[in-house]
Amino acid sequence: MQIQNNFLPMYYQLKNIIIDMIENEEIGVDECIPSEPKLMQTYNLSRTTVRKAIDELVNEGYLYKKQGKGTFVKGRGFEQGLIKLSGCSEDIRRYGLEPKPFVLKATIEKPSKRVAKMLEIDQEQETFYMERVIYGDEIPINKNKSHIPYHLVPGIEKVDFNKESLYKVIEKDYGIVITRAIRTVEAILANEEIALQLKIKEGAPVMLFKGQVYADMKGKEVIIEYFEAIYRSDQFQFYIEQHR
Amino acid sequence: MQIQNNFLPMYYQLKNIIIDMIENEEIGVDECIPSEPKLMQTYNLSRTTVRKAIDELVNEGYLYKKQGKGTFVKGRGFEQGLIKLSGCSEDIRRYGLEPKPFVLKATIEKPSKRVAKMLEIDQEQETFYMERVIYGDEIPINKNKSHIPYHLVPGIEKVDFNKESLYKVIEKDYGIVITRAIRTVEAILANEEIALQLKIKEGAPVMLFKGQVYADMKGKEVIIEYFEAIYRSDQFQFYIEQHR
Repeated sequence: MQIQNNFLPMYYQLKNIIIDMIENEEIGVDECIPSEPKLMQTYNLSRTTVRKAIDELVNEGYLYKKQGKGTFVKGRGFEQGLIKLSGCSEDIRRYGLEPKPFVLKATIEKPSKRVAKMLEIDQEQETFYMERVIYGDEIPINKNKSHIPYHLVPGIEKVDFNKESLYKVIEKDYGIVITRAIRTVEAILANEEIALQLKIKEGAPVMLFKGQVYADMKGKEVIIEYFEAIYRSDQFQFYIEQHR
Repeated sequence: MQIQNNFLPMYYQLKNIIIDMIENEEIGVDECIPSEPKLMQTYNLSRTTVRKAIDELVNEGYLYKKQGKGTFVKGRGFEQGLIKLSGCSEDIRRYGLEPKPFVLKATIEKPSKRVAKMLEIDQEQETFYMERVIYGDEIPINKNKSHIPYHLVPGIEKVDFNKESLYKVIEKDYGIVITRAIRTVEAILANEEIALQLKIKEGAPVMLFKGQVYADMKGKEVIIEYFEAIYRSDQFQFYIEQHR
């Protein structure tokens, strides 16, 4: 395909050429696209035009960048490993990464009115509150905030969650069986704090999940957790499976 | 709470004041926050500072704007109606909106190599391809692209999908029972086309879902659809329910 001098802007034509290469698998998933100088030369375009095309394809989820390494085709299919959206380290492991939580904060506190409502507890009842960043190998995958009614998990603040999985501890040490979760999802832009914690650019699009986790405790259904988790959206593929 | 002249930037302090109002439900969901002049006056701040605080809270999913009407608190809980992420008009109806599809394109075509792989068909086999925007009342909710193997739904191009629901037609007219879906989710930025179609700003964060829909056809499992859907993320709350 060639850039033509017609009514369409040149960066837009270059975008379509690259999309076609991806659609027709001339460049495979996780393969490098041609370098900027190469694209400038092949299609006789300025650096600005080439950059605009690539930046838009990154923003639209076709490509991702690795610092100092180049620009790669993002997995758009189901052919390779995917991380299931379930907060479980096993899924990160299945993707071939070694999951590692990093605790930023762990404390016992009184919840805000909104969080108390989410947990269906009184605002006077204490919660175990934890902020963590979960890494896959050396790459941050998500940052999450957990609120857990403290009376359901007394003593949990003594556990070192840099080493232990939250759900495993809840299930093993407290006789609680997690049964289901309801979560909302939205796209937001990373603020300065999130950008630093997830090692991405400020203003990059990220996914915000908020949810309630339900569990069975001695035959009674309880809300064991209210969480908010922010996932980076550039390198990994997250999936959801639903049955009708 | 008051703005203090300490080390924290003033826009950041104002953000925290507004977040506290939301967390403590002094301003409820879908209620208006104080106007810009009011905030400038109350906290003795410049318009630029107030705008920066509000813009960041919009980007981070705390607030949403309605043109000419003001800035409102976004639903962050599960107390009110939520739209289930299932592509079904019934869920939009449950939210109290009247769903209306608007067909942009409907055609029979040969798939790209990537789409053929997703549908597990040969690239020579034709597909029914449709692009639609789904409205709830007068507000666009999502834009989606469907690819359906044509041999499973011969004659489907004669249906007017401005009036009929895609899944209803597939199930009723072709004896196909939809059983499950696998979808990936990522956050991207709206490009010019999507911004126009969803009536949002270019560069606004949106959610991109891509997926395969499986169905039962005379006792055999088939992939009935590969889709890509872009959801706006500012006004509605979308949710996912998962059982463990």
